[in-house]
Amino acid sequence: MRLWGGVFSKGTDDTVRRLNDSLRFDWRLYDVDITGSRAWASALAQAGVLTIEERDQLLGGLERVRAEFAAGTFVTAPGDEDIHTAVERRLHEIAGQVAGKLHTGRSRNDQVATDLLLWLLGAAQQISAQLVALSVALIQQAERHTTTLMPGMTHFQPAQPITAAHWWLSHFWPLARDVERLEHAAGTWRARCPLGSGALAGTPYPIDRQALAESLGFSGVTANSLDAVADRDHAAEFLFIAALIGVHLSRLAEDLIIFANPSFGFARLDERFSTGSSLMPQKRNPDPLELARGKSGRLIGHLAGLLATLKALPSGYNKDLQEDKEPLFDAFDTLSALLPALTGLIETASLAPSKMRGALDPALLATDLADYLVEKGVPFREAHTVAGHTVRLAETRGVALPDLSAEDLAALSEQLAGDIAQVFDFAAAVARRSVVGGAGEQTGQLARARAWIRAKGVPASE
Amino acid sequence: MRLWGGVFSKGTDDTVRRLNDSLRFDWRLYDVDITGSRAWASALAQAGVLTIEERDQLLGGLERVRAEFAAGTFVTAPGDEDIHTAVERRLHEIAGQVAGKLHTGRSRNDQVATDLLLWLLGAAQQISAQLVALSVALIQQAERHTTTLMPGMTHFQPAQPITAAHWWLSHFWPLARDVERLEHAAGTWRARCPLGSGALAGTPYPIDRQALAESLGFSGVTANSLDAVADRDHAAEFLFIAALIGVHLSRLAEDLIIFANPSFGFARLDERFSTGSSLMPQKRNPDPLELARGKSGRLIGHLAGLLATLKALPSGYNKDLQEDKEPLFDAFDTLSALLPALTGLIETASLAPSKMRGALDPALLATDLADYLVEKGVPFREAHTVAGHTVRLAETRGVALPDLSAEDLAALSEQLAGDIAQVFDFAAAVARRSVVGGAGEQTGQLARARAWIRAKGVPASE
Amino acid sequence: MRLWGGVFSKGTDDTVRRLNDSLRFDWRLYDVDITGSRAWASALAQAGVLTIEERDQLLGGLERVRAEFAAGTFVTAPGDEDIHTAVERRLHEIAGQVAGKLHTGRSRNDQVATDLLLWLLGAAQQISAQLVALSVALIQQAERHTTTLMPGMTHFQPAQPITAAHWWLSHFWPLARDVERLEHAAGTWRARCPLGSGALAGTPYPIDRQALAESLGFSGVTANSLDAVADRDHAAEFLFIAALIGVHLSRLAEDLIIFANPSFGFARLDERFSTGSSLMPQKRNPDPLELARGKSGRLIGHLAGLLATLKALPSGYNKDLQEDKEPLFDAFDTLSALLPALTGLIETASLAPSKMRGALDPALLATDLADYLVEKGVPFREAHTVAGHTVRLAETRGVALPDLSAEDLAALSEQLAGDIAQVFDFAAAVARRSVVGGAGEQTGQLARARAWIRAKGVPASE
Amino acid sequence: MRLWGGVFSKGTDDTVRRLNDSLRFDWRLYDVDITGSRAWASALAQAGVLTIEERDQLLGGLERVRAEFAAGTFVTAPGDEDIHTAVERRLHEIAGQVAGKLHTGRSRNDQVATDLLLWLLGAAQQISAQLVALSVALIQQAERHTTTLMPGMTHFQPAQPITAAHWWLSHFWPLARDVERLEHAAGTWRARCPLGSGALAGTPYPIDRQALAESLGFSGVTANSLDAVADRDHAAEFLFIAALIGVHLSRLAEDLIIFANPSFGFARLDERFSTGSSLMPQKRNPDPLELARGKSGRLIGHLAGLLATLKALPSGYNKDLQEDKEPLFDAFDTLSALLPALTGLIETASLAPSKMRGALDPALLATDLADYLVEKGVPFREAHTVAGHTVRLAETRGVALPDLSAEDLAALSEQLAGDIAQVFDFAAAVARRSVVGGAGEQTGQLARARAWIRAKGVPASE
Repeated sequence: MRLWGGVFSKGTDDTVRRLNDSLRFDWRLYDVDITGSRAWASALAQAGVLTIEERDQLLGGLERVRAEFAAGTFVTAPGDEDIHTAVERRLHEIAGQVAGKLHTGRSRNDQVATDLLLWLLGAAQQISAQLVALSVALIQQAERHTTTLMPGMTHFQPAQPITAAHWWLSHFWPLARDVERLEHAAGTWRARCPLGSGALAGTPYPIDRQALAESLGFSGVTANSLDAVADRDHAAEFLFIAALIGVHLSRLAEDLIIFANPSFGFARLDERFSTGSSLMPQKRNPDPLELARGKSGRLIGHLAGLLATLKALPSGYNKDLQEDKEPLFDAFDTLSALLPALTGLIETASLAPSKMRGALDPALLATDLADYLVEKGVPFREAHTVAGHTVRLAETRGVALPDLSAEDLAALSEQLAGDIAQVFDFAAAVARRSVVGGAGEQTGQLARARAWIRAKGVPASE
Repeated sequence: MRLWGGVFSKGTDDTVRRLNDSLRFDWRLYDVDITGSRAWASALAQAGVLTIEERDQLLGGLERVRAEFAAGTFVTAPGDEDIHTAVERRLHEIAGQVAGKLHTGRSRNDQVATDLLLWLLGAAQQISAQLVALSVALIQQAERHTTTLMPGMTHFQPAQPITAAHWWLSHFWPLARDVERLEHAAGTWRARCPLGSGALAGTPYPIDRQALAESLGFSGVTANSLDAVADRDHAAEFLFIAALIGVHLSRLAEDLIIFANPSFGFARLDERFSTGSSLMPQKRNPDPLELARGKSGRLIGHLAGLLATLKALPSGYNKDLQEDKEPLFDAFDTLSALLPALTGLIETASLAPSKMRGALDPALLATDLADYLVEKGVPFREAHTVAGHTVRLAETRGVALPDLSAEDLAALSEQLAGDIAQVFDFAAAVARRSVVGGAGEQTGQLARARAWIRAKGVPASE
Repeated sequence: MRLWGGVFSKGTDDTVRRLNDSLRFDWRLYDVDITGSRAWASALAQAGVLTIEERDQLLGGLERVRAEFAAGTFVTAPGDEDIHTAVERRLHEIAGQVAGKLHTGRSRNDQVATDLLLWLLGAAQQISAQLVALSVALIQQAERHTTTLMPGMTHFQPAQPITAAHWWLSHFWPLARDVERLEHAAGTWRARCPLGSGALAGTPYPIDRQALAESLGFSGVTANSLDAVADRDHAAEFLFIAALIGVHLSRLAEDLIIFANPSFGFARLDERFSTGSSLMPQKRNPDPLELARGKSGRLIGHLAGLLATLKALPSGYNKDLQEDKEPLFDAFDTLSALLPALTGLIETASLAPSKMRGALDPALLATDLADYLVEKGVPFREAHTVAGHTVRLAETRGVALPDLSAEDLAALSEQLAGDIAQVFDFAAAVARRSVVGGAGEQTGQLARARAWIRAKGVPASE
Repeated sequence: MRLWGGVFSKGTDDTVRRLNDSLRFDWRLYDVDITGSRAWASALAQAGVLTIEERDQLLGGLERVRAEFAAGTFVTAPGDEDIHTAVERRLHEIAGQVAGKLHTGRSRNDQVATDLLLWLLGAAQQISAQLVALSVALIQQAERHTTTLMPGMTHFQPAQPITAAHWWLSHFWPLARDVERLEHAAGTWRARCPLGSGALAGTPYPIDRQALAESLGFSGVTANSLDAVADRDHAAEFLFIAALIGVHLSRLAEDLIIFANPSFGFARLDERFSTGSSLMPQKRNPDPLELARGKSGRLIGHLAGLLATLKALPSGYNKDLQEDKEPLFDAFDTLSALLPALTGLIETASLAPSKMRGALDPALLATDLADYLVEKGVPFREAHTVAGHTVRLAETRGVALPDLSAEDLAALSEQLAGDIAQVFDFAAAVARRSVVGGAGEQTGQLARARAWIRAKGVPASE
């Protein structure tokens, strides 16, 4: 059934039908489409366009269509070019001629725009919940490793000692920001229900758009019907946040992939979260992490692609906009598959504190040596140079920094004469960084992280 | 002057220096860098690391460096590898040895992160102000054209009549959303001052980070030092919003470029906002619009590029992050050049109401014809088919829709027998779309638009 | 069946299995996978690793697996994590224990790399053939419109008269370049058979890799086994060419979408290649063109995404590379659906010569007026200025350029005194551009286009 | 000087001028622009449009302008909106009125298209030469490490032993492919000289386009003037190849960054190619590698951006195309800065053979153990399982693979009873991979690499 054939004298070419038809991917909008149609039927009745009886026939029929989809018994028919057509066709079979009244004053343009927003609101909520679950796993790992020392890196060179807890939490906060991003975005989407915008000019029937919007869980309505049917800002926003989540996961993955290499040996994945090789019997591969890293590229591609699609479109609905759905669905599916796997992987991963501790070299305390000199009154820039020379001399001598002789030290700076042994204590160096957010302030940080989780409605205890 | 030479026994290769040095683009951070350094000096004094006298020497010296930059008299020296080095080197020349104390407990990692956020806050404000100015121009055009009828388009085919005011406003609301986006993003950035995070582990000096942050206009501090020095979410957010602004501008540009073609003749640009051809003497080209459209590609590229750069980086600061600045600066410069040109162009553009009105065909009221039938009790789906047949018949007959004979109409549907002439009134059709946001509700819409502008502190009157 | 379970003591977590398993998309490699496996079995026999009998059992069994796939009767089993596993599992069921010998000296790494190249070679050929078919349609349209005059545009403003044939052909040549690109790329892929590279270090069995490669239709072998298993240059190349095809199609689509708007009225699509509106009965929408334009964004996204995935991967096979297939398959499917629809659309589209001719304004001959002056000895730059003034004066006078009075012309330049009427002949202006590739050289150009088509093995005649 | 003011009655707005003017970046086309103009002057003379005297005045004047640019003495003037205008303005000052004849029959559209191709041909050659230089450095490193054993990795887990030479060469071949790509692309560009295409319709003067093209080093001419002025395929191709080079360099960088971390300790950079930290005195950071990795994102962004800019443009020259130059110039500059720095870095980097050798674990020979069983008649799939169990048992026992007791081995498989000690020889395992391209075939591979270098005209010896 074509919803639009009246003006046409010929059928659609098969190549065009194949190209145009979107049911193979937009079927998953069935639930929000039916929810939207039910709200529209009620609004039409409220506006006096439908009788109460007609409305109820439509509501009942739509509920039956939904049940068929939910049960997997819905059968598509030739001509079901999209989910909207399919639902209306089936409704007609169930409810008869009254089905022909449902689309009064509505267009697929405002219909699909509404469907997409409703779907996005659900998608954002699900991804948020999955992010929170992963966040909990990260926090629990942090709680296990508050005294595990490891080298913190810059330029991927050991830089200063930190705790593994601090490192785990450094992966938590970006995800917390992503949750906040999703929630804020969802709030702006909720304020912009497009239903009632018609094809582009608004519906001519006396629909109370605000009431209609609220019946669908929105808080407000779109301000301009021409903008409303073509606006895909929300789609771009979702893809942007998904890409950013991807970037954050790729960083966590990159760290763990490298840490799981035996030259580091910092981390070991549970076998349930590793895979083997078809050729090499000894291999245990961190596939989920590699896929997390690789899929961040895919998410970036979806964003770049949709923005390119939107670029240079003229006003009003253009069919190009049909290209919004597949990247959205794929981004959602990608994250929905990735996040639970990573959550399990993190929950079951184990760190090797002795390996991490073993990677600490006293040279990582060169900054602390400089700070020691600062305390003695040496300007930092000069202290930095002296500390650098000290490291170099230790390398030349082939000894660790604390093992330089008193003579060597005195030659470098008279300020180094004294009790510098105290400098070379990794735990003390960490503890000194006790400012908010510092490696030595992890009790406070953990409390803030747990409070954030609690605010999301999740008990953060193990 | 290298800030870090102590451990090295050889100089840096020239190819590396050329590759690494960022002063050629990051000099524009001088103002925020100096602001940040002054705040740091004060915080060091507050923490007892500097004396009041030392602090004041630093504050005075930094102000002199700033004055040199502002006056264009700052002279770079070999070894000024970035803005931070250049400022500290010059400070040393001005203030002497005390300059060596400024970097105590600080790293370029937290320093540049702070600089970038301060710069972004300023950039977001400037772009917002320029967007508001363009928005005002759009609203003023809308106010001039509340009765100018034109074909609204879907699929770039004439669809239904609207007013030019409605069309102008359809370009206003996306920009208003962009301003809201920038303001919200800026709010989240303000909550995350990274200063005091050191290189990665936090500063070991007793700095009151919250007070320091507030002294710089921030509302809060970052939660994890390792995350703080590597987080570039804000850079990605700015580029995303810039790309979305680009997409919105490209749509406005696309409309106007086509409307300025004489086959449409809907719009004419002022000569000050057109350019000519080196070969064809008669040409008047809409260059600023074409550049607006073209530059949206550039902005999309910057976003895709930065996300790719961030993807798969390990934890902590990596030099790759130096790649954040050029796309940010270029995105800012691009919009800063584009928005004022477009504002002037919109202010001076003129529409041709008669051309727009002339492009209206009665077939654009086929939906209204269907609605007429609906009113007579015909279900919409059937009414749609009848209206389609009516359009087809008019085409076959070679007449306009209202000129079909009573016989023809009656043959199509007995419901068409009557007074259908009333349907074919474009202005009435527009007026019927009087729901919120509809083409016929433009008084309300204009009031909302003006209220939004006023809320931004701009009087929206002409 | 996991191919790799020996070293593991636990099963794979369900979330990981769902994330990892690629059979849902890589099943379409079944044909090339089986072709590759048969070649490998033969090579193993050649190297003395298998007996002839074992080889024949494998060859026969593999052919049966292929037949099952082709017939749609292949049944997947739990543990079929990818097409390679699925085929080997089924082979084992069919051929028994000998199936366990097939993977000798081979890894999924070199296997999948080979599969992908074989698939790409087929894909490139199919897309090329579809491009050639579309090219033929464009040439045939050009042949119909060698005398149809229309305004050629720059900056989307009428610039100079051309023929519609010249315009159609301007869309042909980019596609011809794309075919050449695909053919050249395929040639380089054919030179690099990776089979025999093992997991990363090469197979330890005495395989004659060159003979093996040739048995699969390759011309040469990869030079370094570690590079061979991780190289995805060919995937990036295919996606780049696909994106460029998309860009070319988007330009054709953009032209036709605008030309089909009634304000232009230059082109009309056949109804079989248009669609209608669910709300507006009169609409005929150019959906296939809009999708061509919109899908160019998707193709750009796939390219950007894959490059981001490849960026910063360490040496050797990484699971991230599994992300290569879905964008490749989708790019192929996208073009495979788009190109035939566009071919039909072009074949059946009709131009409106009178509308096109009607859009020509004598001002489009201002350059010819300048050339006229050049012929009289006026330097071009000065002639350009005079011609510009002439256009301006005609506008001021409200007359067409040829209708300026002799006095007006003489006042502009004494050189304009004479016989300038001859300048204002659109066809003559076109004919003057008779250099190679000029609008007036279309006979030559058409001959070259037809020759190119013939060289591709297609008779280009109607 | 505006080249096009005749038809205009008002000047250009300052905001538009700032937006439009491209001289700040396209000045670097001065050399090719002047070369193109000289060729055009000669062609005009050949066609009888200019006298020999006029031609010579133009040629001489143009050479003087070029000399001013080369010497850095060229002074821009207000109105120099692009390099073409600037050159013509200055030519006018030098050569007088005859300068006004240069642009006869030419447009900036075909002029800039020609300029860009000439520039690209030069750029491709320079990048190729730099890639070859880097390739030589890689080969030389390979030659130093033909017996240095190291773990080859898949999934970033040790997989099988290879030599460092094999690993170095795995980074060479992709760059060799890039050089081939650039050369092939340049060949196609050379076949398409656009000069003589005018603004869009071809020049009306009897120019011998083929001769003109050859005088500029092209081999052929464009086939369609409308396509010729808007075609930017070459720009996209250059950016694609640049992005792919970036991807290849990012992989080399990623390997080396990780190998330079002391937990690996496989590689050490010379101090001239490392940098230090402003805070941490001990740091030696691999900045050039990190920038190589980071800048690959930038190159991907340029490609995605240009493709988005090109997408959906209508036919003919559009000002959007001005956006082609900055990404091209930046991609060239990026690679031009990166490649020499990496060449020096590779030349001076040192590997630590003992560290690499120390990272080899006998478990990396599990595949060889399986192959051992295959030789004894065990089907590979079963042998793989036995080898996997062997690795697991060794882990359980806490011993290295070769140290399992004879009883343990016999219990795993009777085939393991014998002389399996021979399996555990890393060098022998490498040597066994002697197929073409295998880790054990490096003499042949090095010979092929050297031959390739020689074919590029570079003696590959140290």
